[in-house]
Amino acid sequence: MILYGADYNPEQWSKDIWLEDMMLMKECHVNMVNLNIFGWSILEPEEGIYDFSMLDELMDLLHDNGIGVDLATATAAQPAWLSMKYIDVLPMDKYMNTVWHGSRQTYCPNSKNYKKRAHELVRRLVNRYRKHPALKMWHINNEYSDHTSICYCDACADGFRQWLSDKYSIEEVNERWGTAFWSQRYYHFSEIIPPRNTAADPNPGLVLDYTRYMSESVRKLYMDEVDIIKEFTPDIPITTNFMGNDNKPLDYHRWSENIDVISWDSYPDPLDSRSYMKNALTHDLMRSYKKAPFILMEQAPNQVNWRSKNPNKEPNEMTLYSMQCLAHGGKGIMFFQWRQSLKGAEKFHSGMVPHNGTDTKMYKEVRALGELVSELDVNVFDSKVAIYFDYDNWWALEYAPGPSSEMKYMDIVREYYSYFYDNNIPVDFVFKNDSLDGYEYLIVPNAYMIHDSNYFSDYVQKGGNLIMGAFSGIVDESDTVFKDGYMSSLKEVFGISIDSYNVLKAPKANKLGTYMWQDDIICNEAHKIIEENVIVTKNHYGKGMSYYIGARFEDFSQILSQIVSVKGINFEEGISVRVGNKQTYILNFTDNQKCIDFKNMKIDIKPYGFVVIDN
Amino acid sequence: MILYGADYNPEQWSKDIWLEDMMLMKECHVNMVNLNIFGWSILEPEEGIYDFSMLDELMDLLHDNGIGVDLATATAAQPAWLSMKYIDVLPMDKYMNTVWHGSRQTYCPNSKNYKKRAHELVRRLVNRYRKHPALKMWHINNEYSDHTSICYCDACADGFRQWLSDKYSIEEVNERWGTAFWSQRYYHFSEIIPPRNTAADPNPGLVLDYTRYMSESVRKLYMDEVDIIKEFTPDIPITTNFMGNDNKPLDYHRWSENIDVISWDSYPDPLDSRSYMKNALTHDLMRSYKKAPFILMEQAPNQVNWRSKNPNKEPNEMTLYSMQCLAHGGKGIMFFQWRQSLKGAEKFHSGMVPHNGTDTKMYKEVRALGELVSELDVNVFDSKVAIYFDYDNWWALEYAPGPSSEMKYMDIVREYYSYFYDNNIPVDFVFKNDSLDGYEYLIVPNAYMIHDSNYFSDYVQKGGNLIMGAFSGIVDESDTVFKDGYMSSLKEVFGISIDSYNVLKAPKANKLGTYMWQDDIICNEAHKIIEENVIVTKNHYGKGMSYYIGARFEDFSQILSQIVSVKGINFEEGISVRVGNKQTYILNFTDNQKCIDFKNMKIDIKPYGFVVIDN
Amino acid sequence: MILYGADYNPEQWSKDIWLEDMMLMKECHVNMVNLNIFGWSILEPEEGIYDFSMLDELMDLLHDNGIGVDLATATAAQPAWLSMKYIDVLPMDKYMNTVWHGSRQTYCPNSKNYKKRAHELVRRLVNRYRKHPALKMWHINNEYSDHTSICYCDACADGFRQWLSDKYSIEEVNERWGTAFWSQRYYHFSEIIPPRNTAADPNPGLVLDYTRYMSESVRKLYMDEVDIIKEFTPDIPITTNFMGNDNKPLDYHRWSENIDVISWDSYPDPLDSRSYMKNALTHDLMRSYKKAPFILMEQAPNQVNWRSKNPNKEPNEMTLYSMQCLAHGGKGIMFFQWRQSLKGAEKFHSGMVPHNGTDTKMYKEVRALGELVSELDVNVFDSKVAIYFDYDNWWALEYAPGPSSEMKYMDIVREYYSYFYDNNIPVDFVFKNDSLDGYEYLIVPNAYMIHDSNYFSDYVQKGGNLIMGAFSGIVDESDTVFKDGYMSSLKEVFGISIDSYNVLKAPKANKLGTYMWQDDIICNEAHKIIEENVIVTKNHYGKGMSYYIGARFEDFSQILSQIVSVKGINFEEGISVRVGNKQTYILNFTDNQKCIDFKNMKIDIKPYGFVVIDN
Repeated sequence: MILYGADYNPEQWSKDIWLEDMMLMKECHVNMVNLNIFGWSILEPEEGIYDFSMLDELMDLLHDNGIGVDLATATAAQPAWLSMKYIDVLPMDKYMNTVWHGSRQTYCPNSKNYKKRAHELVRRLVNRYRKHPALKMWHINNEYSDHTSICYCDACADGFRQWLSDKYSIEEVNERWGTAFWSQRYYHFSEIIPPRNTAADPNPGLVLDYTRYMSESVRKLYMDEVDIIKEFTPDIPITTNFMGNDNKPLDYHRWSENIDVISWDSYPDPLDSRSYMKNALTHDLMRSYKKAPFILMEQAPNQVNWRSKNPNKEPNEMTLYSMQCLAHGGKGIMFFQWRQSLKGAEKFHSGMVPHNGTDTKMYKEVRALGELVSELDVNVFDSKVAIYFDYDNWWALEYAPGPSSEMKYMDIVREYYSYFYDNNIPVDFVFKNDSLDGYEYLIVPNAYMIHDSNYFSDYVQKGGNLIMGAFSGIVDESDTVFKDGYMSSLKEVFGISIDSYNVLKAPKANKLGTYMWQDDIICNEAHKIIEENVIVTKNHYGKGMSYYIGARFEDFSQILSQIVSVKGINFEEGISVRVGNKQTYILNFTDNQKCIDFKNMKIDIKPYGFVVIDN
Repeated sequence: MILYGADYNPEQWSKDIWLEDMMLMKECHVNMVNLNIFGWSILEPEEGIYDFSMLDELMDLLHDNGIGVDLATATAAQPAWLSMKYIDVLPMDKYMNTVWHGSRQTYCPNSKNYKKRAHELVRRLVNRYRKHPALKMWHINNEYSDHTSICYCDACADGFRQWLSDKYSIEEVNERWGTAFWSQRYYHFSEIIPPRNTAADPNPGLVLDYTRYMSESVRKLYMDEVDIIKEFTPDIPITTNFMGNDNKPLDYHRWSENIDVISWDSYPDPLDSRSYMKNALTHDLMRSYKKAPFILMEQAPNQVNWRSKNPNKEPNEMTLYSMQCLAHGGKGIMFFQWRQSLKGAEKFHSGMVPHNGTDTKMYKEVRALGELVSELDVNVFDSKVAIYFDYDNWWALEYAPGPSSEMKYMDIVREYYSYFYDNNIPVDFVFKNDSLDGYEYLIVPNAYMIHDSNYFSDYVQKGGNLIMGAFSGIVDESDTVFKDGYMSSLKEVFGISIDSYNVLKAPKANKLGTYMWQDDIICNEAHKIIEENVIVTKNHYGKGMSYYIGARFEDFSQILSQIVSVKGINFEEGISVRVGNKQTYILNFTDNQKCIDFKNMKIDIKPYGFVVIDN
Repeated sequence: MILYGADYNPEQWSKDIWLEDMMLMKECHVNMVNLNIFGWSILEPEEGIYDFSMLDELMDLLHDNGIGVDLATATAAQPAWLSMKYIDVLPMDKYMNTVWHGSRQTYCPNSKNYKKRAHELVRRLVNRYRKHPALKMWHINNEYSDHTSICYCDACADGFRQWLSDKYSIEEVNERWGTAFWSQRYYHFSEIIPPRNTAADPNPGLVLDYTRYMSESVRKLYMDEVDIIKEFTPDIPITTNFMGNDNKPLDYHRWSENIDVISWDSYPDPLDSRSYMKNALTHDLMRSYKKAPFILMEQAPNQVNWRSKNPNKEPNEMTLYSMQCLAHGGKGIMFFQWRQSLKGAEKFHSGMVPHNGTDTKMYKEVRALGELVSELDVNVFDSKVAIYFDYDNWWALEYAPGPSSEMKYMDIVREYYSYFYDNNIPVDFVFKNDSLDGYEYLIVPNAYMIHDSNYFSDYVQKGGNLIMGAFSGIVDESDTVFKDGYMSSLKEVFGISIDSYNVLKAPKANKLGTYMWQDDIICNEAHKIIEENVIVTKNHYGKGMSYYIGARFEDFSQILSQIVSVKGINFEEGISVRVGNKQTYILNFTDNQKCIDFKNMKIDIKPYGFVVIDN
């Protein structure tokens, strides 16, 4: 069964509307809602005084109507009284300006008073609803780090010193961060502060470790709630909704270990012509965290409200994106939110029931999708290609005051991913230490930071095909350049040395395409792929083959099509195919009617249409 | 008699210059000056110690030379000692950073110490000069909210709580702002703070009410001075100079009730090719506040100093703009400032007497204009078209995190206004509850917020022609979406329903023009204006007709010329005509010599020239 | 002997690397290093406790290897413990936000605790190494004001009041700043604060004097160290490394008096096609401060790391820029830094020994350059043209809220300079009160501020040719407009009056070129250079001739070639020639092979190549 539903925020509505909601939910085949996301200020009207009456009533009402509940812990936005009573709850920016109450997610992740009240709330919630029949899943907090991803306050500074001293001696800190440069040597942990507003570039080792610490601080918040919940309801699955594309502050892979079901919120940019590819990438990333089906926890039925310009979705486009989720291995299609708000910051964010009611194009599409989804199931498929993804690498690459601010990790990952996507070759993502069994190709778009070079060399040794992108092999885990030079620990695998790297003044071109970056490569055992210059090399190593792509091409399809032998299915741009174990999804992301040939069939697909074919 | 003169800041000059000033003012036909705008730091050298000697001397001198005084209350810029002695005087920005002394208008509108000293100063001034024969008008403060339009300090927070609690119960606040969303519920007024720097979008109801409160806070400053003045000189007219185009923080219409004479400061951008139209719009707006002649209180004789690039005016251009003021119903032409400063922040802002003295092109134009103006009188004319203007709508439309940041109220108003301007059809502006008697057409460029739908429906019922622009009928006065859907209370008037609105990804075009926004309209009783799509509708209602323009055209002239039957006078772009009860003004805003046909006459007009013809 | 070497930061490396460094330095002909730039946090591990052991060892090691030391005072970056212990050490920005420790140069120039500890450190250093045979020069601090050029804290405010009151009475302050305008009158110095964040433009007199005060505050830091050093080692020359192009906060000319050897840091922008001309300008400026050879104290062997995009230098380009330094009168070629860092903020800034070691293209170029340089000597040449340069003018011109933000002093200076550069006409810069003997032409690109008009009129009187650019003659040293009008004190010299100045709305053109600014000039005794309009004038005055160029041309070569009779040597753009007393340098800044004719020789020059020819 595919989950179908939405964030349900009935606090905004009177009870007669609740009853109408139930009727409409059933009409739409809604089978689960996310409840209580922003319930805290109602549940705890003053410190230590609780009122669960509204939530009790809603849980019962939903259960009576056959709708399951993904119950949120309500810790995503604390009540105003809490922010006013304990000033430590509010975060501080890098200028040490307080970030004030008045929107949402305005808490410092290291605030003692936030934690104290949040944990007590969760304890009460779990105890109260642990046996409620509507309870199907726990939804911890909401979109961690979406608005407040970092805090520089004194409590965070204290926590950072503790975190550092638990891992390192002060001499190790000096060594790792290279404090001998610029006279930055520390003699006591008490001398260390967060990378607040500084006169020149702050120490990048400090920035990197502070990023790790902040990711861990937020993960600790999550884990505290997990521990409370698991004590009482060990069998109810737990999720928390991840943010989508380009979310950088949290190492989601590290989190995944303690999440039962991965879920995420998808808000593709309607003005980006490649949104569908980027969205597919994130689906693949989310599926890969636990190698398991995931939930699309939020998407907008129609327009959002928070971009500078927010056009409506085209007719069928919402349905098409929902099918994309299933095609890529999703098991739930949920929306933000059920009924469009009449007030507040998101009143112009669409809802399944829009401002203008049920006699609208949008509601009708929502209702039809519910019926459709009720007949579908999870799509399972195999990938022969793995793409390596690493948060530490992302952070270190971008925080280094380095050769070019244009070397953005996610952009580079997408440039490689899009070749496979456009050719309908399924890929998985793999992470540090993940098994590589069964993958014919390992793509490493960038490995600026090398955790363990054996991970890559062993894979090739045993017969794998390794493809690694430019500006790789520079630093170790502490962001220290390898003292033997770039790529030093991978020299034998690739059969090359590097003289230098170079961001080009202007793009260059050769027969493989146009490129903006070029490593200056010396072939040792390796061979050049094209004669004119040493820009892509290949090397036999052990039972496998390794390729180094020492340039950042605007389009990697020329070179990848030459060196990757896995064949996909080729349609024109905008047509995507995913062949699962039982069914095949064909999706048309263009605004034109299409007629395609597939397995000797002629298939017509509407603009923003799709077909699902039994294999 | 038309007023002619300037801000006069003789504090900058020695007494021999004062005597030269008198001679030159008479030569230029100056009949009034604005005195004492920035006099406070001289009048009150230390707390409670006053020295009026210089002002006494100046009042006498001006009177002896036959020049009237618009006497300023000098509260626009407090002395440095006041800012240093009472820190509460200084405003705070949204990050709670103090805005420091050192320029001007650096006071918090809710500062107790500012008010205390300002009121005492005004009391003394009024008592001292109440019977002085030079006193012709009171000029309260100066350009309220030009530099400091908002403050977030604790005193403002306290005042805001008081202002709210005077109007609403805490439950009503929660209801109006929709605090059930994002867990923003308040239990006590003490929990409410201004919309300071927040992590995500602040509650728009809070922002809207804070804007109203700030506008009222500043109005309260003004009213306090009015009350003091009226007690002693009930018959001397009071003005305060409004800011010009695009001034958003103050609801000037609300102020107008307590202003005897409207005046404003006009600084058209020399690099904007449509400045003259925008300036005309503001003249019409200012005239409409009280349906009475207004004063152009400040304009620059030549260049200003505060834009990034400040070209000189073309020869005659200053005179032309002065004539535009009269053409649109002005009764005074004043400048900032009389003599160009040699020092300080505005030393490169032109003065009537420039740095290089009287043997300059500019001074000669100033002198000639004085002579010309002394022979002219107020121009009176009627308008058959009214444009609806509403500050609440402006604020709410732009503070909503909504479908498009490009939906700027003043831009939309200008897009409609410019049709009438370019066709020389006189318009008035009307405001909430204003009488509509005598207007054949009521143009509502945007009514995102509806105060009272009867205002519009009654007008049509009785025979009026109502034209309303896109994205209208969305929210009530508390910025809450109408629960029955968009345009719900105006459905019958327009004979339409709305399925949804939409900011387009890219412009579309039909035979009416190119447009960037389109409401998705369902015609009930209404008819489409053009066949190809439902984008503009018309409907018979009562004795009148209503038109809904569900698109934002780049140029509304195609559609408005079809539905508005009032005929104007057509010349080429840049030639403006205003036919008054006695005289006709023809203005040439181009840099070319023009020869036009008017009432069977051939009339030559110089570049930036004009003619005034007796009817 | 030409100095050749680098900043040497061995604190980052183990002792075995030090030994390798010695070997490589000798291989590269390195004869001097800048040592101890960032040594403080090692030298003083806690307050008052010193450890010179590492520095002792390094001094001895360098001496043993025949390498001289330019010993830095290590005050450029204080230790973390100092910032944490005494909060007054940290600067504050204009919003009064603290600038935090974590990068470098994070000290308030008026901090008592910074000064106390810095002076004590310098005293100890000087005493310890005063007789060390390796000591060749003192290097005070490092790149003063690069990151922290201004501070707004209360200590700075106190110092500012003191600085002002030492120079002026409070009435003089009011008079100079024109505080009668905008009610800014001060009655006590205690009412004056720095130009912190204000609501509108701060008083420009205040801003100008605060800039002077800040420049002097930093100079005071420098002078304090000079005084300590000179007491013990009066014969060791002192330098401090100036920043290069466009460094505005410090009046380097004022500093030069107390510097024994001028040195500067050169980082030309690789993406600016005119970098080589701008770099030559700075060489000429640096040589002119003391009319003596200077040291290029820092340049990058290859790429830097701190721009948004940092391409590598082209092959030979580093050598070419080193030759440019010698051609323009330099006596030292030094780099930042010797060995590329593996960690920290500048690990991607190139070093003479790069990450990838000595078997790299870059190291080989560095080594070859060392050998080449060891055979060259200082290039001496004469200039017949002087360009007037004035920091006060720079500050006042750009801080005035004036006619155009595009009137940038350095841009204007460069526009004039480039004519002479492109025509290979040597120029010197001259400064306030400098002798003008021997200069046939005095070029004054802009004299918005006139210190003493006699300086210019005397020069012409005695037979000089004066050429002055537009928007000149406006204000005196206190930034007050001359009460008799623009250019009033130079009217007779130039034989002109000015009606007004004007930044044009769009560029205009005449036969002299295209221009963006035009003074409206009235010729009295002067003559127009071209008939069509009064834009450039010439006037006989005394025994000389004066030219006023009342326009800002995009290219001044048309007009300057007409009025300057000094002939240069013309090659195509990108080829530069400097004829010295013994040798001639010809430099090819293009990426093409060139063959040029010079003194009847055909000379081939490689891309980015050069030749040095004995005269």
